[in-house]
Amino acid sequence: MIVCEPVTGLPEVRRGDDLAALLARTADLRDGDVLVVTSKVVSKAEGRTVTCTKEEALARETDRVVARRGPTSIVRTRHGLVMAAAGIDASNTAPGTLVLLPEDPDASARRLREELLSLTGANVAVLVSDTSGRAWRTGQTDIALGAAGLEPIDYHAGRDDGYGNVLAVTAPALADEVTAAADLVTGKLSRSPAALVRGLDRFVLPSGEHGSGAARLIRPEEQDMFGLGAREAVLRAATRDDGRGFGAASSPEELAEALQGLLPMARVRTGSSLVRVDLPDPGVIDDREAGALAERATAAAFSHGWVLDRSLPEPADSPDRGLTLRPHTT
Amino acid sequence: MIVCEPVTGLPEVRRGDDLAALLARTADLRDGDVLVVTSKVVSKAEGRTVTCTKEEALARETDRVVARRGPTSIVRTRHGLVMAAAGIDASNTAPGTLVLLPEDPDASARRLREELLSLTGANVAVLVSDTSGRAWRTGQTDIALGAAGLEPIDYHAGRDDGYGNVLAVTAPALADEVTAAADLVTGKLSRSPAALVRGLDRFVLPSGEHGSGAARLIRPEEQDMFGLGAREAVLRAATRDDGRGFGAASSPEELAEALQGLLPMARVRTGSSLVRVDLPDPGVIDDREAGALAERATAAAFSHGWVLDRSLPEPADSPDRGLTLRPHTT
Repeated sequence: MIVCEPVTGLPEVRRGDDLAALLARTADLRDGDVLVVTSKVVSKAEGRTVTCTKEEALARETDRVVARRGPTSIVRTRHGLVMAAAGIDASNTAPGTLVLLPEDPDASARRLREELLSLTGANVAVLVSDTSGRAWRTGQTDIALGAAGLEPIDYHAGRDDGYGNVLAVTAPALADEVTAAADLVTGKLSRSPAALVRGLDRFVLPSGEHGSGAARLIRPEEQDMFGLGAREAVLRAATRDDGRGFGAASSPEELAEALQGLLPMARVRTGSSLVRVDLPDPGVIDDREAGALAERATAAAFSHGWVLDRSLPEPADSPDRGLTLRPHTT
Repeated sequence: MIVCEPVTGLPEVRRGDDLAALLARTADLRDGDVLVVTSKVVSKAEGRTVTCTKEEALARETDRVVARRGPTSIVRTRHGLVMAAAGIDASNTAPGTLVLLPEDPDASARRLREELLSLTGANVAVLVSDTSGRAWRTGQTDIALGAAGLEPIDYHAGRDDGYGNVLAVTAPALADEVTAAADLVTGKLSRSPAALVRGLDRFVLPSGEHGSGAARLIRPEEQDMFGLGAREAVLRAATRDDGRGFGAASSPEELAEALQGLLPMARVRTGSSLVRVDLPDPGVIDDREAGALAERATAAAFSHGWVLDRSLPEPADSPDRGLTLRPHTT
């Protein structure tokens, strides 16, 4: 059984406030509790409030734009988080001010955990939460930006499910599920910026062990299939921009298989680090058709992280009948 | 305060079992409770188990492939859900069998809710949950595929946050946060396929009112910026496939702004349903450069859901110096 309750009675938090002392005074902390604190209040205490325009703040916090439609910008922040408007928030703050995300949410969580231990003697885990949209679902849920004292992912990999099937890929994002549960009691309108979750004692690490941190919940860029919106990906490919957002380059075999599927009439061969496509002779397809096929193959290769290699001369007798491709390195 | 506890003592559920009767016997249901039932057990009771190969099951459940890398396929299911392997599960089922998602998870939730009311007299909300990955985060969380008796999204839109700021876009995905909380007590290995969440009474609708259903949590395709992986988007554009996955076509003004940003030397004009791009004269850029710019503009337009319009003849004196574009209708 788990119990979630809001931490009530916290005063308005301002720049320079000792957040750990305020939490220690208002929350009834016990060994094995998980304390969820919204990033908003952590940022306020850490002085991460700015008075510039939203555009300036966005530029400062953005690593790159992932997708943009009308007034909505989905960006990858300097932390690696993919969020609308870089997680910058104009709500629950004085009009005209903006609250940025904490500089290093895992460090914030670790600091709070250590200070709470020394203030109260209780070994609690600390999660720093924020509200985030999702690619394919409407509405938002709270996720963990920072974690200390709780492994953010509960790896079940390799365990047996009791039916003899090995649970190879099951890895619940424990920290995100705890922050989602906490949001049910804090909510946007309760003015309670923290919640206690009890009953997860078996996941709370011994004091002094902070675990991997919530940065582990960020999908590494080379595994990110959705590092760009669909439109942005096409535009980037068309403008020959770098390959970020496409994930790691495919292997020569993967690329060859994709190209062969796209161009059944072509001859596709793989080398150790090159892929060669030979198009049919002029007697089979004319130059115009060969040009269109070459364009398709080039775009398909780009989408796999491969580009044209021009270091080898084309055969003099059929200069427009082949493509040599190499992985795009940025 | 909310409390989550697993429903323990449920027997192994098989095709044709009366799931509501089993739950009514084992769970201590009270008015205002939210009962979360994993889709797995709902599917088993509904006979959604198959013995075909994973490839066959995947083909049957897939509306379209969103992204594919190595052994992983992210697909949009017939329900509109974007999930790895269409939510088909080979775990917690007899070896050689596969469990598909319920045919209509909202209908399953409504049926269970009504049956539980008549069996126990308790007005509970019912959520049907499943485990899902996320585009930009590692690990999985449980989400709501079906909902009855609880609005899946708690719209705060237009309410005041207490600081005078209107919370315009805050819409917590309540049902997804409840299923995430429930997963903390059911988990993959507890063999408990259901959980009770107490303390959300104010969100539970009167008996007879089922609410919008969890289908509301599915982002409509025309708002989906990530309907295709980055690579898939490029490949689809290169092969002139239809525009699904790109979201609705941009307005003429949006397209014109994007093209003008990409091609500062071009003259871009908008009509009511066409956009015209005129490239500089041969004295300024040569034909080869004009061709490259036209290619870029065409790809950029495609990424906005626009294609070349060939219904109007180009001026005879400069046939390769302009593009007329129209929205792509599929």
